[in-house]
Amino acid sequence: MITAIVFVQVDNDRIPEVAEQIAGLDHISEVYSVTGDIDLIAMVRVGDYEEISQVITDKLTRIPGVLSTDTHLAFRAYSEHDLEATFSL
Amino acid sequence: MITAIVFVQVDNDRIPEVAEQIAGLDHISEVYSVTGDIDLIAMVRVGDYEEISQVITDKLTRIPGVLSTDTHLAFRAYSEHDLEATFSL
Amino acid sequence: MITAIVFVQVDNDRIPEVAEQIAGLDHISEVYSVTGDIDLIAMVRVGDYEEISQVITDKLTRIPGVLSTDTHLAFRAYSEHDLEATFSL
Amino acid sequence: MITAIVFVQVDNDRIPEVAEQIAGLDHISEVYSVTGDIDLIAMVRVGDYEEISQVITDKLTRIPGVLSTDTHLAFRAYSEHDLEATFSL
Amino acid sequence: MITAIVFVQVDNDRIPEVAEQIAGLDHISEVYSVTGDIDLIAMVRVGDYEEISQVITDKLTRIPGVLSTDTHLAFRAYSEHDLEATFSL
Amino acid sequence: MITAIVFVQVDNDRIPEVAEQIAGLDHISEVYSVTGDIDLIAMVRVGDYEEISQVITDKLTRIPGVLSTDTHLAFRAYSEHDLEATFSL
Amino acid sequence: MITAIVFVQVDNDRIPEVAEQIAGLDHISEVYSVTGDIDLIAMVRVGDYEEISQVITDKLTRIPGVLSTDTHLAFRAYSEHDLEATFSL
Amino acid sequence: MITAIVFVQVDNDRIPEVAEQIAGLDHISEVYSVTGDIDLIAMVRVGDYEEISQVITDKLTRIPGVLSTDTHLAFRAYSEHDLEATFSL
Amino acid sequence: MITAIVFVQVDNDRIPEVAEQIAGLDHISEVYSVTGDIDLIAMVRVGDYEEISQVITDKLTRIPGVLSTDTHLAFRAYSEHDLEATFSL
Amino acid sequence: MITAIVFVQVDNDRIPEVAEQIAGLDHISEVYSVTGDIDLIAMVRVGDYEEISQVITDKLTRIPGVLSTDTHLAFRAYSEHDLEATFSL
Repeated sequence: MITAIVFVQVDNDRIPEVAEQIAGLDHISEVYSVTGDIDLIAMVRVGDYEEISQVITDKLTRIPGVLSTDTHLAFRAYSEHDLEATFSL
Repeated sequence: MITAIVFVQVDNDRIPEVAEQIAGLDHISEVYSVTGDIDLIAMVRVGDYEEISQVITDKLTRIPGVLSTDTHLAFRAYSEHDLEATFSL
Repeated sequence: MITAIVFVQVDNDRIPEVAEQIAGLDHISEVYSVTGDIDLIAMVRVGDYEEISQVITDKLTRIPGVLSTDTHLAFRAYSEHDLEATFSL
Repeated sequence: MITAIVFVQVDNDRIPEVAEQIAGLDHISEVYSVTGDIDLIAMVRVGDYEEISQVITDKLTRIPGVLSTDTHLAFRAYSEHDLEATFSL
Repeated sequence: MITAIVFVQVDNDRIPEVAEQIAGLDHISEVYSVTGDIDLIAMVRVGDYEEISQVITDKLTRIPGVLSTDTHLAFRAYSEHDLEATFSL
Repeated sequence: MITAIVFVQVDNDRIPEVAEQIAGLDHISEVYSVTGDIDLIAMVRVGDYEEISQVITDKLTRIPGVLSTDTHLAFRAYSEHDLEATFSL
Repeated sequence: MITAIVFVQVDNDRIPEVAEQIAGLDHISEVYSVTGDIDLIAMVRVGDYEEISQVITDKLTRIPGVLSTDTHLAFRAYSEHDLEATFSL
Repeated sequence: MITAIVFVQVDNDRIPEVAEQIAGLDHISEVYSVTGDIDLIAMVRVGDYEEISQVITDKLTRIPGVLSTDTHLAFRAYSEHDLEATFSL
Repeated sequence: MITAIVFVQVDNDRIPEVAEQIAGLDHISEVYSVTGDIDLIAMVRVGDYEEISQVITDKLTRIPGVLSTDTHLAFRAYSEHDLEATFSL
Repeated sequence: MITAIVFVQVDNDRIPEVAEQIAGLDHISEVYSVTGDIDLIAMVRVGDYEEISQVITDKLTRIPGVLSTDTHLAFRAYSEHDLEATFSL
């Protein structure tokens, strides 16, 4: 499993609506509206590397109200829990 | 459940070691070493609001090798999955 | 009591008007127009964690003239005074 | 009453200790450890303008563990509550 | 006397005109067009603290062509000269 | 008369002391400790262009406790007052 | 051979289309859509120094959808492989 | 001779055209389109201090396509060559 | 093939030496010393996603003289050339 | 002729001394101590592209007191004067 953590800047008054749409995409496990100077943080979980840009470049960035994205890809995951099982979405 | 997403800057050559220690703390579901100008992203999941600073201020920031932290607390979570069940850690 | 400190950027010539509207919202104890590169700082005081995003995401960010917000949630409060009593608004 | 809102950067592992010391100073009503890239936010409330630098420059910045401060002075306060009474500390 | 030093960003081709208008306001002793990434620096000198926001928030920021302001209030003034007399404008 | 406005970053606990020393230099009319992320703002007033670097590069930057300087030179001054007379120091 | 590495910011929803057009230009060996706060990274390989601005200033920056570019020119290349042969495009 | 080095941000697809116009102004010795996040760097050489703002504020910033300027004035010039002669333009 | 583009900040006077060492690592096709505020840009080409952190986290960041790294992973590559063949290193 | 414009950050109290040393290097036509948040700006003029890194990476960055450099290479020069002749140093 490859995880990507995407910071999303959104039109100021469309945050809940855009969060719902992102959460509805395949391979998105969770979306959070957060404190600080980032509007949303989306967690992308995929099996193959190529799927990442299908989710982010081809779908997420095209949702109306999304202004910009800043993606951080996980090199490695560290956890005391079985993440593969946890996120076998 | 309240989720906090913590960006952690670490001594350049202690990243894996610090990631393991953070992942071993209570209420930490996952830690990722990531691309970009952030070293680690840790996912904190707690039941009560007071537990957040016990995890972050009292424990995480004191792990040797941790240089600074930048915490983003989730206002709301959006997901097609039952996150409470998923993260009933 | 949970406190959030919200930095608000506002249309340059609508600062007093927007400050009044924010101060009129539930759970807002004070709003200050301040020096520096922040226009307004609003103090949010709530009983339950869920109320924070109702105040900020659902109401404050939607006030006409509000350009962006940057929220800092208090982990802990330190004071020689009884803040619960002081802010039992 | 003049209010100053001071952002304080602190040695990573001395946050609670420094917060207590700041909260113990005259004219400090509250100190919060907060999310984001600011460690502490202190609320200074004084009667005379000259008292501000006595609190901040002469005392707060000299507390061991304080790395830097960024002060935002309130031009005006907006509130539905009687702040003078609330903060007649 | 309380001094405020205001950095003003202005429409690129209206700098001299805006500088003249700011200089014409009460309590403005000098305005400079300057090198670097700041367009104008205005020196505000007032007797009472409340007058500062009357000059800056109510007048200066509303001058057409003013894009944004960043105010730095003086805690203390240090000089070998009698500034009160010098600026008894 | 040529005016330079110098932002000075100072060792956190030496601000008043350094301000006094800068104020004692020739061609320095005023020094302010200020709010925001700048420690001191010094006003340099000279007759000849060459004197500016004698004051700033050769003297001001060498005062113990001065960490860095950022100088903004005035292209033009705008004022309703006779600045030459005011600052004939 | 002289190499230039160009960071390109693009209209949010035109990334693949713009990448294809850049890749079609002479002297462009590869274009990558990447993680982080950069949209595209283009690798320019030329024989003569003058060709660089023909590729970047005259062609790349004029492709519809390109918002801004930030070029980093290689002083020297270090490799265990024969780059001249590899990139004799 | 007083030298000013002006960083100029320009409309993305008008760089050569704007560079030519700046180069045509009096007291401009050279203009370079450059790598990095600056579009143009112009070298201004004048005899009297007052001429600087005539060149920059009154002419250069008003050329269509110029978005913003950031001027760095030379305190002193250091060279093994006779710059006065070299630039007696 | 997965490509990662790594920006590397290096001790000021060890740039060539560090560049050579990085270029000697497996899966590094080229390293460039570049203009601008980045010291080196390294091109990493791997077959499997897991190899990326073996190259970057486990080896590159540990080379003496490396101060920090900022990795941008390629979602997709666009080229008129057969990159797989070109980089079948 | 290829021109490079190098921004140099220097130890606060060694600016004149470092400027002299840089000005003494081959292919350096001028060095300026400047206003703003840059200490020195050096003008490098070379005949061949390879000479640039010999001047900057191998010599300039190694001068004691140089903290960091940020080089901007000229794509093209625009001037009403014969720069080749002017700078045939």
